[in-house]
Amino acid sequence: MSRKYEELYQAIKSSSNIMIVPHKYPDGDALGSSLAIYIALKRMGKNVWLISHTPIPSKYAFLSENYTFLPLELVPSDLDLIIGVDCADKERLNLSDDYLKRAKKVVNIDHHVTNDQFGSINIIQPVAATGEIVVDIFDDFGFEIDKDIATCLYTAIATDTGNFMYSNTTQNSFEKTARLFNTGFEFVDIARRLFLEKSLAQTRLIGLAISKMEMFQDEKIALITVMKDDMTQVGAKEGDCETLVNIAVDVETVQVAIFIREITKSFFKVSFRSKGDVDVAKASQVYGGGGHKNAAGCAVNGDFETVKQNVISLVKDMFFKSE
Amino acid sequence: MSRKYEELYQAIKSSSNIMIVPHKYPDGDALGSSLAIYIALKRMGKNVWLISHTPIPSKYAFLSENYTFLPLELVPSDLDLIIGVDCADKERLNLSDDYLKRAKKVVNIDHHVTNDQFGSINIIQPVAATGEIVVDIFDDFGFEIDKDIATCLYTAIATDTGNFMYSNTTQNSFEKTARLFNTGFEFVDIARRLFLEKSLAQTRLIGLAISKMEMFQDEKIALITVMKDDMTQVGAKEGDCETLVNIAVDVETVQVAIFIREITKSFFKVSFRSKGDVDVAKASQVYGGGGHKNAAGCAVNGDFETVKQNVISLVKDMFFKSE
Repeated sequence: MSRKYEELYQAIKSSSNIMIVPHKYPDGDALGSSLAIYIALKRMGKNVWLISHTPIPSKYAFLSENYTFLPLELVPSDLDLIIGVDCADKERLNLSDDYLKRAKKVVNIDHHVTNDQFGSINIIQPVAATGEIVVDIFDDFGFEIDKDIATCLYTAIATDTGNFMYSNTTQNSFEKTARLFNTGFEFVDIARRLFLEKSLAQTRLIGLAISKMEMFQDEKIALITVMKDDMTQVGAKEGDCETLVNIAVDVETVQVAIFIREITKSFFKVSFRSKGDVDVAKASQVYGGGGHKNAAGCAVNGDFETVKQNVISLVKDMFFKSE
Repeated sequence: MSRKYEELYQAIKSSSNIMIVPHKYPDGDALGSSLAIYIALKRMGKNVWLISHTPIPSKYAFLSENYTFLPLELVPSDLDLIIGVDCADKERLNLSDDYLKRAKKVVNIDHHVTNDQFGSINIIQPVAATGEIVVDIFDDFGFEIDKDIATCLYTAIATDTGNFMYSNTTQNSFEKTARLFNTGFEFVDIARRLFLEKSLAQTRLIGLAISKMEMFQDEKIALITVMKDDMTQVGAKEGDCETLVNIAVDVETVQVAIFIREITKSFFKVSFRSKGDVDVAKASQVYGGGGHKNAAGCAVNGDFETVKQNVISLVKDMFFKSE
């Protein structure tokens, strides 16, 4: 057992009252990893409180069918241990210094290399998902990984690796997931929920977006626009727009995909996606936005037709001028 | 080394001229596994011919960028060894008895439990993909698995497991894939090509199909119809229809998805998909079709409106009568 793991093990062993905290606006990794730890500690006979600062996204509701993520207010004040899970920094742990003083120790289990080491015990490993670290810790401690815990940790690893397709995926992601497969957990059902199922409104919105998709520059540029009326027409919610730009960038000829969404009549959110070396962060920076080489965004003021023409011209001039 | 592996190793060692045969109408597993074996045997200094009875689907064209799948006619007649890869039976190997007599031995490497053992050496293991067996054989033989071979074997395992989401996926699928990850192969690019990218026509066809999708029985039944005119309108090809029924079954409320495709004005192909215990093979059997519990199909004669009404009534009566 490494020194860090030994420290964590002793801290758990000597604690009675333990609180587990996923980062605010929790994703599959934060929820799955923290719930796995909750189940294991309950089995050890500890008093454990699992909280969430913000609501659980409906996509992950299946995780909390048998377990409840409590609001912070319901946790008693005499804690021995606070375990932050998948929190890259103290801000995402979202607990005041006064609150942290209630506990004898604060554990910080996370996979972000930029982690600010807010804990008294910091277990930070640069892997794709915190779930991978939890598998490792459980095996090291000899904690049983059964069906319920495997469900949580598969959700953690599979979501943070984009179903094993994001570039953060490593040998370790596959090895730790392999480790979960002898438990007989219902991975087909869970994979369906996580990666395939959509609401009817989301499906209708995809249909509408494709029907409105425009192609430019020999099908190297694709534009999808969604107006407020479109959202109303199909009964879509705010979050239903999130992945629409992927439909455009997944067209095989496309090098730059643009997604324009109407917020008000004169204010639009613009997302860019690209393939290979086309650096769309440069395009978003023109409008004061940010992002990465292959995924960036900005906000633009103006009337729709002007915004649209300006954004298309910008992309054409910036990336396809020589053609 | 197991006796079977030892037999295979000796057969390869004592052979100079070797032909490798993926099953006809090859998929990602057949192509990836057979190309991996081709590369390894070439490196051993063997004379190797890799054939394909039928064209390579464009989705897998990247595999043959540096390698050519030859037509059978270009293979010389003096062979020492024929290796059938991912061929569940002699029919899919697609070689006459006379042809097989050209070789001293026939090796049969496959993962279908129903395999008819057509080889003189049969290596049949009930795993999700033949690619998993090839990883095991190469490690056993001490063959180097580098970037090129990892590309082939990842394609084999990832496609046959539906990107690790089909129910055939096991601990072994993840372990064998993990094994490929220390080679630095471009898995993000390959995963994109295999699972995300679509032609513009395929994307337009999805949009059109969603816009025409009809819901019945409190959104538990979804119907998608594609007519010949729809195909023409978006420039879609025959194969572009294949996965459209999934869009309907992936709507979270849907229990039965129906896909009707016009072949002629009075002849239609009908596909059914279902979730959980709803056995749609029963519905396809009414029209003399077949399939499995959750995926079945049949062909139906009649004019479109009659066919459509009859199929919907059938599904309602068979699965939702008590509601």
